[in-house]
Amino acid sequence: MIIILKSDVTDSQISHILGKVEKLGLKTHISRGVERTIIGLIGPEDVLQVIPLEVFPGVERVLPVLAPYRLVSREFNKENSIITIREGIQIGCGRLHVIAGPCSVESAQGIRAIAHKVKKAGATILRGGAYKPRTSPYEFQGLGEEGLKYLAEAGRECGLATVTEVLDPRDVGLICRYVDILQIGARNMQNFSLLKEVGKVDKPVLLKRGISATIKEWLMSAEYILSNGNFKVMLCERGIRTFETATRNTLDINAVAVVKQLSHLPVIVDPSHATGKWDLVAPAARAGVAAGCDGLIIEVHENPEEAFSDGPQSLKPENFEILMRDLQKIASAMGREI
Amino acid sequence: MIIILKSDVTDSQISHILGKVEKLGLKTHISRGVERTIIGLIGPEDVLQVIPLEVFPGVERVLPVLAPYRLVSREFNKENSIITIREGIQIGCGRLHVIAGPCSVESAQGIRAIAHKVKKAGATILRGGAYKPRTSPYEFQGLGEEGLKYLAEAGRECGLATVTEVLDPRDVGLICRYVDILQIGARNMQNFSLLKEVGKVDKPVLLKRGISATIKEWLMSAEYILSNGNFKVMLCERGIRTFETATRNTLDINAVAVVKQLSHLPVIVDPSHATGKWDLVAPAARAGVAAGCDGLIIEVHENPEEAFSDGPQSLKPENFEILMRDLQKIASAMGREI
Amino acid sequence: MIIILKSDVTDSQISHILGKVEKLGLKTHISRGVERTIIGLIGPEDVLQVIPLEVFPGVERVLPVLAPYRLVSREFNKENSIITIREGIQIGCGRLHVIAGPCSVESAQGIRAIAHKVKKAGATILRGGAYKPRTSPYEFQGLGEEGLKYLAEAGRECGLATVTEVLDPRDVGLICRYVDILQIGARNMQNFSLLKEVGKVDKPVLLKRGISATIKEWLMSAEYILSNGNFKVMLCERGIRTFETATRNTLDINAVAVVKQLSHLPVIVDPSHATGKWDLVAPAARAGVAAGCDGLIIEVHENPEEAFSDGPQSLKPENFEILMRDLQKIASAMGREI
Amino acid sequence: MIIILKSDVTDSQISHILGKVEKLGLKTHISRGVERTIIGLIGPEDVLQVIPLEVFPGVERVLPVLAPYRLVSREFNKENSIITIREGIQIGCGRLHVIAGPCSVESAQGIRAIAHKVKKAGATILRGGAYKPRTSPYEFQGLGEEGLKYLAEAGRECGLATVTEVLDPRDVGLICRYVDILQIGARNMQNFSLLKEVGKVDKPVLLKRGISATIKEWLMSAEYILSNGNFKVMLCERGIRTFETATRNTLDINAVAVVKQLSHLPVIVDPSHATGKWDLVAPAARAGVAAGCDGLIIEVHENPEEAFSDGPQSLKPENFEILMRDLQKIASAMGREI
Repeated sequence: MIIILKSDVTDSQISHILGKVEKLGLKTHISRGVERTIIGLIGPEDVLQVIPLEVFPGVERVLPVLAPYRLVSREFNKENSIITIREGIQIGCGRLHVIAGPCSVESAQGIRAIAHKVKKAGATILRGGAYKPRTSPYEFQGLGEEGLKYLAEAGRECGLATVTEVLDPRDVGLICRYVDILQIGARNMQNFSLLKEVGKVDKPVLLKRGISATIKEWLMSAEYILSNGNFKVMLCERGIRTFETATRNTLDINAVAVVKQLSHLPVIVDPSHATGKWDLVAPAARAGVAAGCDGLIIEVHENPEEAFSDGPQSLKPENFEILMRDLQKIASAMGREI
Repeated sequence: MIIILKSDVTDSQISHILGKVEKLGLKTHISRGVERTIIGLIGPEDVLQVIPLEVFPGVERVLPVLAPYRLVSREFNKENSIITIREGIQIGCGRLHVIAGPCSVESAQGIRAIAHKVKKAGATILRGGAYKPRTSPYEFQGLGEEGLKYLAEAGRECGLATVTEVLDPRDVGLICRYVDILQIGARNMQNFSLLKEVGKVDKPVLLKRGISATIKEWLMSAEYILSNGNFKVMLCERGIRTFETATRNTLDINAVAVVKQLSHLPVIVDPSHATGKWDLVAPAARAGVAAGCDGLIIEVHENPEEAFSDGPQSLKPENFEILMRDLQKIASAMGREI
Repeated sequence: MIIILKSDVTDSQISHILGKVEKLGLKTHISRGVERTIIGLIGPEDVLQVIPLEVFPGVERVLPVLAPYRLVSREFNKENSIITIREGIQIGCGRLHVIAGPCSVESAQGIRAIAHKVKKAGATILRGGAYKPRTSPYEFQGLGEEGLKYLAEAGRECGLATVTEVLDPRDVGLICRYVDILQIGARNMQNFSLLKEVGKVDKPVLLKRGISATIKEWLMSAEYILSNGNFKVMLCERGIRTFETATRNTLDINAVAVVKQLSHLPVIVDPSHATGKWDLVAPAARAGVAAGCDGLIIEVHENPEEAFSDGPQSLKPENFEILMRDLQKIASAMGREI
Repeated sequence: MIIILKSDVTDSQISHILGKVEKLGLKTHISRGVERTIIGLIGPEDVLQVIPLEVFPGVERVLPVLAPYRLVSREFNKENSIITIREGIQIGCGRLHVIAGPCSVESAQGIRAIAHKVKKAGATILRGGAYKPRTSPYEFQGLGEEGLKYLAEAGRECGLATVTEVLDPRDVGLICRYVDILQIGARNMQNFSLLKEVGKVDKPVLLKRGISATIKEWLMSAEYILSNGNFKVMLCERGIRTFETATRNTLDINAVAVVKQLSHLPVIVDPSHATGKWDLVAPAARAGVAAGCDGLIIEVHENPEEAFSDGPQSLKPENFEILMRDLQKIASAMGREI
């Protein structure tokens, strides 16, 4: 931690700060420049998070030296984490995995039909929402446990792993009985009750980035899960909110490489939410692979005109197939496979 | 709902759309211009939210005519809603109310001491967090039920109503037994499980705007609460996330008047989170009153240097007193009182 | 300047950095912590702006200690700058001044008529664009020199000072002959050719904040003008671009107080552009005064339905009169006058 | 244009609007729904841009049907525009072109040396700034005409076309004598004097997107150039400003495909400014190619530690070479070449 003092700081203000900090067991280091005096603090920064140094008289700014996350950081683990979903599905290594399926599970038969198609095109994990976070209380809220059953059956039938979103800490146990991966949605990225709950179970978690979360906050949310004991976390970039309205969100493609530098966790890209329009999904998905992501999650629906949710951004199975072929080419140019 | 068709739309595409829409019981209205053909739909728009018209071939854009919220809208209730917190405290009328207190309840004695001081300065409601949503899992997470007790006792002793944040749907019942107002924090504005839960109880709710929520989304979250039966909702503008880093957030002062136009619900301004710095709280609070808000929520701490959370943005009691006197002058210039 | 080194920095990397920096005549100060080594640099920071320390091997981050602006800073001048526009009009002191008038000068008679009305309501400066920056090449681009003449005549006739926008460095001389204040618009805040040009003349400049300029960048643009010799700069907050679309821009009300802390220059608020809707102008203007601004610039048009530009955000003279009376009350509550 | 009326609109307000609009020669079409009445206007929308319909009493909202740009639109030209820079360099067709070189021209010898290296790696166009837009007046402002000479000589010697930024309308003529492409920088995207000036010359223009410009505004700025007669415009996505601070800007990778849908003009991606860090340039460049861009502009410097500007985001020649090989693979996977 570095404290930059005001140009008119007094000696007694400096003593007051030093006294406080040294009482916490930190060593201090004063450097007096022409225009500013600076105090460097040596010792565990965590201790300092307790005191709001910014409010001490004479303090202009406080600059942290270390990132606030530990377990998720690249320093904690220099190697890439590889998350095993089930036999044959490992995320974070040379092979990319594609998660595909409808936004919502709408019926037993619907999810089965699409499962077969995405499997055939090369997906290895089936997505489908049973509990839906909808902006409006008047929109379709999901089939609940029934939806979970249909999803699990479809996955079993086709040999696909499964992922679904969990909205409520009370549902974690139930959902764990049906699916292979728990998804934390963008709106719940800082729902700390929920993060703690999924941190206590032994299931991989797909943690979506909040719509306006900084990369640092996103990693801190992952830290909540790891620090509760669950290290199987995958980070999902799904577009952020900006001033641009031509697309539903803005895919932060830079974030893929930034996160790979800062963290050892795998990164998944969601081109469906990141664009909001089916005819923009393919270029965004290709860009994700070229930027170095470890997997993709893509909404596919048999008949988007009839979709209960996210119809505008869902690919038809035939377009998904074409995309998968293109992604294989890009992955191969990157020295990887799908 | 208005559908703008592509310039090269075909007659069979138009028939396909009309067929779909008319089957839902809506009347249609075609208007053929030189460059675009437009379909107007007459009937309940809610019906249309089910179908993703954007994906129908030939459709360029779909424009809703009505706002998606109903119960919270100014059209639903032309009069301002007045929320009675307890005898003598009504929010949304000529008199503004100030909610004040520490970010977190830290001890029985601490909250009592500050309660007396904010009461003396003119506050009518006491704030204090018992369950804290913290970006880092390593930061102080609140005293839990113990904190609720201390808060309730301090309020009772000083004749102040009380407000605290609820993070988890499982805590709603417990918290209701202790406080007068439930706060939904910015990070949980779209935690729909939680919104539904507080929609079912008979307690006023202070709904903070999400850090990057549009006004429309904010009103939709309020709609979740009202549509579950609880009409006692107050909207709290607490600053939004923008590119500017000189302040913790950007107070969206425009939002105060916009929300008063669109909705009948009272609007509270939180100058503490909206700035993040104690020496910016006063101008932001004054601006809130001048813009027409119905109340303020302000963090006050006996000794910000020792605060467990939000020290940098907490006012000392003496500065809070000065601010209250200034706010009274501005309120009076506005023809209101505090 | 503070250099935070990577955790795996080598001694030879450190020597390389020290060698470089010491050759520039700066003293260095190394502090070795448990997890990071830090180099503090003592001496003129300007020298360092030349070298991109971030790219030196072993460097993690570089943190500047000082703000990059000097002449505009509060440290350079502890007193508020007072800008004299002409006899009787001083901006930056106890009395606030209101600049009012149409977006564009549309005719000799139009500008005269509105000048009389805004004067009567209490404005002291007349605004009117002769060169208009329009998003579309097909929109009205202003009357040019003719517009300047009409504006100057109207100002003279009513005893109002005048302000108009300059778009092109080639027009500075011409415009100076007609008006009292040069306005640099938001889109040109970083048009450095133009800034240098207005820095060389002896006319007050109203520098609007760029639509997505940070406060630091805004002050740096002011620094361009001051460093070229013109110290008569007023800073105009006119709303920033955010994700919110309910208003044309988001008035950054926090910025008023922030700028008053960082700089000695006067701050003007533009509630017309900051909201984009005439019925939101009054609350935004009141908020500006309550936040501590030194003046306002407000669009007023005789008949907004016929305005060539910015009709939606223009007040009618009768509403402007009402607003002026309300602003006087708020100013008085603030211990100031209008 | 569609006008949505307020729920309490009166008949006389409707008559007033109809009268106004019909006087302008437009046909109107009224549709009365249960909750709202809507007026559709048929005829040239341009006519309506003159009147601010939003301010007419009874009007709730006004929705444009058509995009405000014409010449740049895909409807104006269904085929991709191909811009010929010089013999052998055509942008917008199957072959991608890479523009490379230093941020600033620093010396005759420096630009020659780097020109040889980028040429060898596969670049076809040489970049180098002679007039630099710098946030601070105290930073290096470029060598001016001398820099242009050095750039032109280096290009001639290596058989590379050249591009440089123009900041001031007064410099357009001079710069045209030296280089093949004029660059309009992000800060000047809405410097309309400059846009008009480059619209009058017969040189290709590289138009960078403003740091917070919507795609629509960016296309409108291109429209300024085309409507002045110069159709040789290339659009350059260079990252936008968002809340994220981990990178200098956020590459809006979605924009590449969106612009290709909306416009016939070629799209260039600038991964250097879009990330601000040399070690993020490669993934961003690869993503650009995978998203379908027509070219890239990349900063390369012999010794970034000594660069006068943009050192942190400049690649060394050896890294540029590696990147070019990777880009060739991605381009080939896309069915294109570099």
